[in-house]
Amino acid sequence: MTTIIDGKQLAKEVNAQTKDRVAALTQRGITPGLAVIIVGDDLASAIYVRNKHKKATQLGINSIVRQLPATVSQAELVAIVQAYNADPAIHGILVQSPLPVGLDEQAIVATIDPAKDVDGFHPLNVGRLFANLPGKYPVSCTPRGIMTMLDSLNLHLRGKRAVVVGRSRIVGRPMAAMLINADMTVSVAHVYTKDLSELTREADVLVVATGVTHLIKRNDVKPGAIVIDVGMDRDENGKLTGDVDFDGVFDRAGAITPVPGGVGPMTIATLMQQTVDLCEWSEQLGND
Amino acid sequence: MTTIIDGKQLAKEVNAQTKDRVAALTQRGITPGLAVIIVGDDLASAIYVRNKHKKATQLGINSIVRQLPATVSQAELVAIVQAYNADPAIHGILVQSPLPVGLDEQAIVATIDPAKDVDGFHPLNVGRLFANLPGKYPVSCTPRGIMTMLDSLNLHLRGKRAVVVGRSRIVGRPMAAMLINADMTVSVAHVYTKDLSELTREADVLVVATGVTHLIKRNDVKPGAIVIDVGMDRDENGKLTGDVDFDGVFDRAGAITPVPGGVGPMTIATLMQQTVDLCEWSEQLGND
Repeated sequence: MTTIIDGKQLAKEVNAQTKDRVAALTQRGITPGLAVIIVGDDLASAIYVRNKHKKATQLGINSIVRQLPATVSQAELVAIVQAYNADPAIHGILVQSPLPVGLDEQAIVATIDPAKDVDGFHPLNVGRLFANLPGKYPVSCTPRGIMTMLDSLNLHLRGKRAVVVGRSRIVGRPMAAMLINADMTVSVAHVYTKDLSELTREADVLVVATGVTHLIKRNDVKPGAIVIDVGMDRDENGKLTGDVDFDGVFDRAGAITPVPGGVGPMTIATLMQQTVDLCEWSEQLGND
Repeated sequence: MTTIIDGKQLAKEVNAQTKDRVAALTQRGITPGLAVIIVGDDLASAIYVRNKHKKATQLGINSIVRQLPATVSQAELVAIVQAYNADPAIHGILVQSPLPVGLDEQAIVATIDPAKDVDGFHPLNVGRLFANLPGKYPVSCTPRGIMTMLDSLNLHLRGKRAVVVGRSRIVGRPMAAMLINADMTVSVAHVYTKDLSELTREADVLVVATGVTHLIKRNDVKPGAIVIDVGMDRDENGKLTGDVDFDGVFDRAGAITPVPGGVGPMTIATLMQQTVDLCEWSEQLGND
């Protein structure tokens, strides 16, 4: 019996908790504030930002979307980030990727106050995660959402094998760090990996984040494995699909995320959760 | 034919380059400065610090050893680090580990100016490495020294399998990051790993940093593998030995580091190299 990991349902549960936490803060006169900066007119980015804004507003978060023209200079963008850094009403700052050519995205991310780095992309927060430092700091939302999914399955992860396919800064690398910190034996594969299938077949937990449609097929999966598909690809008919051939893998996996309705909704729910975390932490309130 | 990777000889070559670089800087009126802070009277720490001081002095680096009593307070230690941060004659600052109980080592490390973090332990530098950011920043010296060793073998690493046994902040984790950045497929194993031997036998490059004497034996190694032993253990006769059973593994490996005379000398040579890097970078001089 394969479990389909219902990201939509789990996201609803996380969002319900977030909404309660926002309400509790609001009662104390505090409203979590999220500033999203979007530069230029990339269509996909506009949709992502609109979805984040809508969800934040639904949950009672004060969501500010700052739309800037593609002609904005690096210095102007830095100044805007610094203004949000200094604004006590803003607890989370997010610069929507990608930025137009000519802007240095890494330099902008490094300008964000690490305590307001709601995406968890600031190298200081990346380093804290990778070194598994104690304390409270934001981390990348997609892998954090995946950890919430794994937690929901009540698995015994310690000592088991995880394989992460993809080594991006946003998903693959922080995912590997979180799984190492969860005491799993973790392998990181990527575009240069030879004999990928041999490796993925060893995985008790397989996370695939490559953007290659249906890269992972039935024979690449160990029977009973937990399969997490981060892909958001379009098939030949323009239909949204993943990096995993869901139909082929489905009854071989122990649990599997669908696309859509798997990792995607969890990422945005985690972003909202983390906005409220940052707000609580800034108020010296715990949430663990 | 197995290559014994002669860390002592390679360290000599690195040190010779470092000495030349120091001489070139001195001619321009700049002397690289290294401040080593040691707290309390741990015997092993005292030996390490003495060796660093001796080597730095030999190479023409201005080495300052600041010995503090175990009774020093966190605030006093922070103030001393901050004074070195502000001192333009000091390019590298190192706080010898371990600190006496009661002092928060992570908080002290986070106080070091990341541009003077010669050990590469500051979470900002850890994050830069793990995210594989471009630019110049210090990294952990033991794994950097191991990368120099691998470079000296002129291997084709891309796409090959690496297994790192141990997930410490100082060796295992940054080692894994560097090998991922070198386009290897990397697995991280540790104390909770099951079937360790199965995993290590897949490694083209095997790095062992566990502190468990002779954990890796002949049958745990793939024929022809490159075996890097970070262990500095004492056998039952008090003799220095490694995490790898050198005699058993020797003629099965393609190349192997001895203990002593392998990774150890490279770590200290890399520390000196990185002190001079920091000095050159602070002067806006390139070295790549």
